Amino acid sequence: MEQVYLDHASATPVRKAVLEAMLPYFGERFANPSTVYDMGSKVKQAMEEQREKVAGLIGAKGKEIIFTSSGAEANNLAIKGVALAHRKKGNHIIISSIEHHSVLNAARFFERMDYEVTFLPVDAFGMVNPEQLREAIRKETVLVSVMHANNEIGTIEPIPEISAVCKEKGVLLHTDAVATVGNIAVNVDDLGVDLLTLSGVSFGAPKGTGALYFRGGLRLMPLIQGGIQESGRRGGTENIPGIIGLGKAAELAVEELPANMKHARELRDRIISGIRKRVEQVKLTGHPENRLPGHASFCVAAIEGEALIFMLSREGIYANTGSACASKALKTSPVLVAIGTEAALAQGSIVFTLAPNNNADEISYLLEKFPPVVERLRAMSPIWKEQTAA
Amino acid sequence: MEQVYLDHASATPVRKAVLEAMLPYFGERFANPSTVYDMGSKVKQAMEEQREKVAGLIGAKGKEIIFTSSGAEANNLAIKGVALAHRKKGNHIIISSIEHHSVLNAARFFERMDYEVTFLPVDAFGMVNPEQLREAIRKETVLVSVMHANNEIGTIEPIPEISAVCKEKGVLLHTDAVATVGNIAVNVDDLGVDLLTLSGVSFGAPKGTGALYFRGGLRLMPLIQGGIQESGRRGGTENIPGIIGLGKAAELAVEELPANMKHARELRDRIISGIRKRVEQVKLTGHPENRLPGHASFCVAAIEGEALIFMLSREGIYANTGSACASKALKTSPVLVAIGTEAALAQGSIVFTLAPNNNADEISYLLEKFPPVVERLRAMSPIWKEQTAA
Repeated sequence: MEQVYLDHASATPVRKAVLEAMLPYFGERFANPSTVYDMGSKVKQAMEEQREKVAGLIGAKGKEIIFTSSGAEANNLAIKGVALAHRKKGNHIIISSIEHHSVLNAARFFERMDYEVTFLPVDAFGMVNPEQLREAIRKETVLVSVMHANNEIGTIEPIPEISAVCKEKGVLLHTDAVATVGNIAVNVDDLGVDLLTLSGVSFGAPKGTGALYFRGGLRLMPLIQGGIQESGRRGGTENIPGIIGLGKAAELAVEELPANMKHARELRDRIISGIRKRVEQVKLTGHPENRLPGHASFCVAAIEGEALIFMLSREGIYANTGSACASKALKTSPVLVAIGTEAALAQGSIVFTLAPNNNADEISYLLEKFPPVVERLRAMSPIWKEQTAA
Repeated sequence: MEQVYLDHASATPVRKAVLEAMLPYFGERFANPSTVYDMGSKVKQAMEEQREKVAGLIGAKGKEIIFTSSGAEANNLAIKGVALAHRKKGNHIIISSIEHHSVLNAARFFERMDYEVTFLPVDAFGMVNPEQLREAIRKETVLVSVMHANNEIGTIEPIPEISAVCKEKGVLLHTDAVATVGNIAVNVDDLGVDLLTLSGVSFGAPKGTGALYFRGGLRLMPLIQGGIQESGRRGGTENIPGIIGLGKAAELAVEELPANMKHARELRDRIISGIRKRVEQVKLTGHPENRLPGHASFCVAAIEGEALIFMLSREGIYANTGSACASKALKTSPVLVAIGTEAALAQGSIVFTLAPNNNADEISYLLEKFPPVVERLRAMSPIWKEQTAA
């Protein structure tokens, strides 16, 4: 096999139909949607159609969608936008301890101001406990942010239960759904969230696209201040080709979701059982059932994740270790630390994330190549020698 | 003529060579540049090459460029990033009174906090007076922001003189160069600026692209917090196809700039002299000489700019009134008010902005269609009837 790409949480190729939908908007349909003439108003209309499509993917209304340049921007807009606009209510923010860097660092930004941030612990599977959240909420709490699913360990958080606590306490709830939207069914009402982040990169839309859902009427301070774009909530000329691509990818995701989920789950289960059968001392990370259908993550004892990634890539297999953003910045994953993985084992983190275009042959190829690669690395590992000698 | 597009300050079509450079990065070269394997590191390398090209367009170094999603984002990053990172020095910001909404509203954001903002007046041509700036600077001043050129009236500000004052006083200087970069020669050292905003939409790169230049070592609080992208100064997966497009457009702009400027200046001068000759009671707005080569702007007495735009668009001519972002939000342009235009005359604002692909035939067509359109509108104007009767 030439190339088996199993790192779809880091990036997905833009789908053909998505790129085709975008192309006219680089050329003939290039006008600025804020202009008053027909060339511009037609572009504006096309943009509003995409807003409906993106809203449709998560059971929201078009007017509740703000287009952004990434999931990270949407997360920053959610945290900072709410914290700044609701300062009069209070100065306390609660996030889980396994949030993406964009949520984590946006929250930490407020620690330098007169805000306080509580980091909720998670259990060994990476699950937030709604009862612990209830205890953490104070009268000054303005926002709770818990991700819908974690990209590194695949665990899906109990957002409806978390929402019930937030509603009872009258606190706004944001969820970073970058890992779920486009991959599993997501409905803002079923989840009971007030704000939700999604990213186009997760489901075949181009890089540079994302959106924030905010429940109608919710007050939000813009992150990028400017003109009247996005109803005054996000300034700057809109990335029209990107938005067209995001809309098209959303439309396709809605149609294909049930079949894609089934397909991903089958391949994932083959990876999990296959690797467990073929390699000793390998631990599945994250929740065994409550996890993303296309997500298989492990810690492999006595080797380093980066070396494993590198050796696999020489066989044409592309996977990840830790989250894409943290991969170069940190040696030990904070997510693996939060679920109580011992430091040595956490070094051997590997993450496979699937997309609909992956197939059974690719998984067979992975299962064929993975054990000898692990064996070769362990043969060079002093830790492994020590363990096996004992 | 089918279509004469003279609103390039609002949007430019993506150039063929630019789109061709981008296309592989939607498909085969889709990997995330933050990943550790070769697929990703090749994308990272391509991105860094574009950084050098964009830096080359403004005489900067690659490491001084932060890619953003728009000029508006870069303006927000500059204002907020400096104000927050240099709070210990002081809490006073100075901007000109004709800045783009993204600078204006980012500065106003700080008025709600414990900062003060001074708005520098401009003269009848829209020029900032460096001596007035000197008087406005205090020991608490952390940042001065004056745009390089104004999109609505075409005036080029005396940035080197403004820089001399800032350097003397030890204050950081930012310039919003969205209207100039790609259209005239811009060099950060000649200008003497510490931060500079540019936008891809100004010169044939796709929407969703922009950059902030920041002088090496300058402290800056990120606007979008996240991972290690952009050396920790802007989180979120990079918009790789957009960045490739921005780099290609920058490369082409460097090559073609002298010829393009000459061409634009010739067409502009034909518009200015032609309209002045053919239409009575029309006032050129902005500076008569110190203006963008491709920019002609007027106030036409006794009619409304929006009606004029609409009537011209029915003849296939596309122009603007006021700035693109403000066009739907405000009736009277704050820029025209700042240069002392009387309110009634300011209603008749019209702005033509040229690109290299405009030609002499298009200008002839404009000069043929413009006078009868004005005549028709004035025939319906009670103000005009009153004036001509008197």
